[in-house]
Amino acid sequence: MAAGTLFYAQSGGVTAVINATAAAVIRAARARRVPVLAGRNGILGALREELIDTSALSAAELKALAHTPGGAFGSCRYKLKSLQDDRAQYERLLEVFRAHDVRWFLYNGGNDSADTALKIAQLAEESGYPLVCVGVPKTVDNDLPLTDTCPGFGSAAKYTAVSVREAALDVAAMADTSTKVFVYEAMGRHAGWLAAAAGLAGQGPDAAPHLILFPERPFEEAPFFARVREVVERVGYCVVVASEGIRTPDGRFVADAGGGKDAFGHTQLGGVASHLAARVKDALGYKVHWTLPDYLQRSARHLASETDWRQATAVGEAAVEYALKGMKGVMPIIRRTGDRPYRWTVRPAPLAEIANRERKMPPEFIREDGYGITDAARRYLEPLIRGEAYPPYGRDGLPKYLDARLPLVEKRLGPD
Amino acid sequence: MAAGTLFYAQSGGVTAVINATAAAVIRAARARRVPVLAGRNGILGALREELIDTSALSAAELKALAHTPGGAFGSCRYKLKSLQDDRAQYERLLEVFRAHDVRWFLYNGGNDSADTALKIAQLAEESGYPLVCVGVPKTVDNDLPLTDTCPGFGSAAKYTAVSVREAALDVAAMADTSTKVFVYEAMGRHAGWLAAAAGLAGQGPDAAPHLILFPERPFEEAPFFARVREVVERVGYCVVVASEGIRTPDGRFVADAGGGKDAFGHTQLGGVASHLAARVKDALGYKVHWTLPDYLQRSARHLASETDWRQATAVGEAAVEYALKGMKGVMPIIRRTGDRPYRWTVRPAPLAEIANRERKMPPEFIREDGYGITDAARRYLEPLIRGEAYPPYGRDGLPKYLDARLPLVEKRLGPD
Repeated sequence: MAAGTLFYAQSGGVTAVINATAAAVIRAARARRVPVLAGRNGILGALREELIDTSALSAAELKALAHTPGGAFGSCRYKLKSLQDDRAQYERLLEVFRAHDVRWFLYNGGNDSADTALKIAQLAEESGYPLVCVGVPKTVDNDLPLTDTCPGFGSAAKYTAVSVREAALDVAAMADTSTKVFVYEAMGRHAGWLAAAAGLAGQGPDAAPHLILFPERPFEEAPFFARVREVVERVGYCVVVASEGIRTPDGRFVADAGGGKDAFGHTQLGGVASHLAARVKDALGYKVHWTLPDYLQRSARHLASETDWRQATAVGEAAVEYALKGMKGVMPIIRRTGDRPYRWTVRPAPLAEIANRERKMPPEFIREDGYGITDAARRYLEPLIRGEAYPPYGRDGLPKYLDARLPLVEKRLGPD
Repeated sequence: MAAGTLFYAQSGGVTAVINATAAAVIRAARARRVPVLAGRNGILGALREELIDTSALSAAELKALAHTPGGAFGSCRYKLKSLQDDRAQYERLLEVFRAHDVRWFLYNGGNDSADTALKIAQLAEESGYPLVCVGVPKTVDNDLPLTDTCPGFGSAAKYTAVSVREAALDVAAMADTSTKVFVYEAMGRHAGWLAAAAGLAGQGPDAAPHLILFPERPFEEAPFFARVREVVERVGYCVVVASEGIRTPDGRFVADAGGGKDAFGHTQLGGVASHLAARVKDALGYKVHWTLPDYLQRSARHLASETDWRQATAVGEAAVEYALKGMKGVMPIIRRTGDRPYRWTVRPAPLAEIANRERKMPPEFIREDGYGITDAARRYLEPLIRGEAYPPYGRDGLPKYLDARLPLVEKRLGPD
């Protein structure tokens, strides 16, 4: 192998399986005798020259890493400015890469990260520094173009479908004398992918979830209330799944309705589920309950989808392969080659076609009445939540997740 | 066997494993050739003469029932009045029992249900009707006296500990540039059992959850804020687990603080987690997130504790045995006979010592500073979440839960 170091960084919101990708990257690089440094807190680790020495990970720890949720090296919400606006930052990155002989840069994130990787590649090219930049897909939002799905989404989708099915059984059992309307709030600020996944929990008009609210459709109270009442009267209870990103016809986030400041100037935190539940209670008089799973839905490694876990592993392996082959500016993506049975392969796609582009949910995935998913959506979604990739558990009844304090390599530069 | 029918009913909030108890009851009764009728929606089913014929359940369905969350026959929140205040209701129950030759009544619930079972037993005795009333324990609140634990609690406790550990890994990965304080709201209006279970997620001063808020201790903002700040400054982030039942020193529920009506007369739904998160944001300026798992925590059969599931099964079997032996007014309880390894047996306890009595969390389970659990609590709690009792999954990636529409037996009486 050519001499040099591979730098790997995690970016943006973490997932239940991003560490499976990390473990695959490290394992694949080790097999080729390429040392891997990981950015502490993502790209900030490079800017601050806080580089984690992954050679400290034992084989057993690497195995544990592959089934640990969260981001083991730290991730960050930090978008570099444009090359024109902050050239110095990009130069600092190259300086750190040079100091540590980084020849391959793997950036594990969404569309923003693809963009950043491209800009770094551009500057390296201009400065004549030999650097191969490769993106690695990851996001529970499932909004990257070209790829069939994004690692992280399938597990969050499985969590959503299973949780909604279980909670619905609870509500069904008690509805006669207790809660009649239950609202589940799913992540998805711009697209309703996770809300759509909830639709897998049941089939037929009487099965929960009875109503799904998508950000792709404007939310109007009156028809929604009418549907809730109709379902309660017919089925006995109504399970609603609401995307956090639903908006009123004039474009305001419904989630913000309950937020802001109260009369005492105290912050009121918003939320779609609590707001809808309160409105249903006022308008229809039903007893309501609601849930906001928040980070639980994207960190639930205990309920990971096996498909998702395998894909997260595969893109990590492919990214190393592409990088070491010198394939600049690509990202391994998942290509669906069959539906029944689900078949997929990994192949490279140009980062330039991924950067800053958002994949929307196809309109044909949403039922005509706007409150549910179609068979086409089921066909797409179902394989993504298939299979259980359980983590090992200890005698204490808890999953054995990696808890390693990894050393940073010694700094070779002054502060940024 | 003596001729007659066994009547089984579920009462109050359902759990991830109450149907395991139901399946055990039906199986044990079948083995003794005793037919089992189940109340549709608990005791209301008896009052309305809506009795489910469990003989319609095939062996495969019975097996599926044992790993299905929720209450398959329906439960209810319905407390019978005292015998003096509504003797007619109790007489109606006996009338229905007589009409269907019910000789054994198994009531699966908490302290209220124990009380109801006792009253029915009393009236049967007075009227000379041969009826054996047996209680069967169930509650995620873990507040029944005498028993080591209550079936349903262990699984909710496991869900809580695992979820907190997973979410904490997510928060840890992002804290540098994102959420610094995360608040998890655990069920527990009167006792902090589930909040305490969250303490199993980590050990040592830096491990999440960093702060647990128990209803057993008055909640004061100033010292809480100081602790949050101290943890964030030391660890980089702070995971808080709050019991829904925490109160201010003057006895008001903290959860009600954000509730009530807003300036437009709209309902605002309360909640401990959203309130605390907002207050922390205002007082300390940190980015906050929070979760309200609500029913998800008590219906998460996918993450059931094997210990809990076994105990739920064992109390069902024992209840049938006691009933058919003619042991009146008892409840099978769990007796702990060893800690390491955890050993337990089932034995009968008098319903009269359980009815309307609440078991509090021992003060020695809460750390002196009030924000965590002690080693004694760990020793008690850990075995209860031990082992994984996974449900089978289908090719669709979802647990195979029972979805049976069971027939009601024909009515023999007029309406109530």
